[in-house]
Amino acid sequence: MHHRTIWRDVEGDGAVRAIDQRRLPFAFEVVEVASSVAMAEAIADMTVRGAGLIGAAAGYGMALAAAEAAAEGTTFDEVRSLLGAKAEVLRASRPTAVNLAWAVDRQRAVLATAADADALVARAWAEAEAIADEDAAACEAIGRHGVGLLAEIHERTGRTVNVLTHCNAGWLAFVDFGTATAPIYAAHDAGIPVHVWVDETRPRNQGARLTAWELGQHGVPHTLVADNAGGHLMQHGQVDLVITGTDRTSASGDVANKIGTYLKALAAHDNDVPFYVALPSSTFDWSLHDGVGGTPIESRGADEVLRMEGVGPDGTVVEVRIAPEGTPAANHAFDVTPARLVTGLISERGICPATREGIAALYPDLAGSAAPNDGGA
Amino acid sequence: MHHRTIWRDVEGDGAVRAIDQRRLPFAFEVVEVASSVAMAEAIADMTVRGAGLIGAAAGYGMALAAAEAAAEGTTFDEVRSLLGAKAEVLRASRPTAVNLAWAVDRQRAVLATAADADALVARAWAEAEAIADEDAAACEAIGRHGVGLLAEIHERTGRTVNVLTHCNAGWLAFVDFGTATAPIYAAHDAGIPVHVWVDETRPRNQGARLTAWELGQHGVPHTLVADNAGGHLMQHGQVDLVITGTDRTSASGDVANKIGTYLKALAAHDNDVPFYVALPSSTFDWSLHDGVGGTPIESRGADEVLRMEGVGPDGTVVEVRIAPEGTPAANHAFDVTPARLVTGLISERGICPATREGIAALYPDLAGSAAPNDGGA
Repeated sequence: MHHRTIWRDVEGDGAVRAIDQRRLPFAFEVVEVASSVAMAEAIADMTVRGAGLIGAAAGYGMALAAAEAAAEGTTFDEVRSLLGAKAEVLRASRPTAVNLAWAVDRQRAVLATAADADALVARAWAEAEAIADEDAAACEAIGRHGVGLLAEIHERTGRTVNVLTHCNAGWLAFVDFGTATAPIYAAHDAGIPVHVWVDETRPRNQGARLTAWELGQHGVPHTLVADNAGGHLMQHGQVDLVITGTDRTSASGDVANKIGTYLKALAAHDNDVPFYVALPSSTFDWSLHDGVGGTPIESRGADEVLRMEGVGPDGTVVEVRIAPEGTPAANHAFDVTPARLVTGLISERGICPATREGIAALYPDLAGSAAPNDGGA
Repeated sequence: MHHRTIWRDVEGDGAVRAIDQRRLPFAFEVVEVASSVAMAEAIADMTVRGAGLIGAAAGYGMALAAAEAAAEGTTFDEVRSLLGAKAEVLRASRPTAVNLAWAVDRQRAVLATAADADALVARAWAEAEAIADEDAAACEAIGRHGVGLLAEIHERTGRTVNVLTHCNAGWLAFVDFGTATAPIYAAHDAGIPVHVWVDETRPRNQGARLTAWELGQHGVPHTLVADNAGGHLMQHGQVDLVITGTDRTSASGDVANKIGTYLKALAAHDNDVPFYVALPSSTFDWSLHDGVGGTPIESRGADEVLRMEGVGPDGTVVEVRIAPEGTPAANHAFDVTPARLVTGLISERGICPATREGIAALYPDLAGSAAPNDGGA
């Protein structure tokens, strides 16, 4: 059965539902997200995660917020004020992926022109659906644009194309299709032989838990490796191409993505392996020009480093402590790969160099939408 | 109570005993290694692990082999032949750390001149003790030579020195003191404020399990991080110095160490962070000149990637599966950091550049002991 990662049950009870990604791959569970606060919590605790999905979740969260505000407020001014407060709760749920603020702001701009509470709620639901549909369409387009990179390698070498990816930028991280995986799925479906090196992606193991599961479900050959392995694989010619996602892309092409991405980009650069980043334009932060210095990097709880969940000897899912009791741990969730290490960006409009000029040429309508806030590149 | 990692109980029953490092940090257990085959198994299953300790274990393994051969053989020729066969079992137990072959060869050279079986056995035990004692002395000297690096940083900055290390090159990896940790312990003991970023070191988690435990036991401030974190920390000025160990060092300064070391060296280079490698001279492979192309890299079982051990909810140690059932996994245990990324080598004779000339200047007596086998650097 085909699922999106988040959806409103418009033909049923009207509830917003999502795949609970904390349970995968050990269980496939769908949960209802019943309020805007519950949506903020679902984003913070990573029930839903991934740049595009966080944006779509914020879109639906704003629709829930609009419905709540309409029910709670007595005047339309009060409704708008309540909506504004709820929007800030959503916005604060996670700091790094810019899609979150982008979706909240997009909803607020649309809702600002609503004439009354009923129109506000109707528009909010329609915009949430639009954000989700556009994310899915963008990912499908990324697949079409990116598949040529794999096809070219296969034509040149005559053998299986080995792609390395970090974290999960698959359909689970978006509404559908994914970004980094979209060209991989497109190549596989087109009969191009492809094999994926899946970085485990400590500490949350999105590679081991989500990407390996996705690829397995789709029948794409893959091998799980420790995050430490990629440099060795590249030194020995076992990686043709790296593709990752991004949670916030600067106007100059710096890429904030899951912690450890920068290390793979360094190894790719050192071994002349192309390093591509796939993204819908919603991950651009047009006001950001120095990604390394200016990206807010989320710090998460130490327990994510100190504890690990898995299937125990009796078949139930348990959490184990994997370090000495009382060990201090730090958990930075993202790092920033400077544009100089990025071969190109694969977006819904095509492939461009990771440079200010390259990006502006593909997005002339958006690239000028914010003035540099940090003195330029 | 002070323990070496391996020792012969010369004042008791004469047995060889070792700390079972597979049980740490959840339990501290000492096991007897009763035969040369058992020693080969203890090396292969990582009951004992780490470059120096593998060498010392091979030294004791050869002594056990000599005693076995003397008991099993009827003529001295037969004893020597049996010893040769047992030596090859030990030599084959793990491929990457050159200390293993070095210790076996050193024992064979010494034992070749023994006049009879009794002399052979006595010399083998004496040489095993000498190898262990020299390893401990070398590590202590590495601490004396390396502490100046930390002292200089502290004097220059006036603040705590932040050191990042990968895997475990602590006293657990050697007979005593360790290599990468020796300057850290020396600095801490001398009152220089030091803090260590401990790489978890997937998939065997030697950082989380062993280095964090060692440092905690010694009272050295430390923070456990995912292997993915080091690049981000270096980008943001939070690492003053990287020190790792090595399992095989080429005559030109290439360094084979735990998988992922190369990624940290790339990040250090990209951020102008000094990257030092600490080693006793027993890790030099004087016949190796192209480390990246010529180092045998061990592949271990997929289960080390797919499964994780820890303390479960009921306080017992359990293993959990952390990826979807049936996921293929690869487990390369080491990678090679090219000499160009290494700031310097800290050995028992002092600090030298990671270059053929720098190494030869410090080891004129050893550097010429083998001709290039691969056409030079």
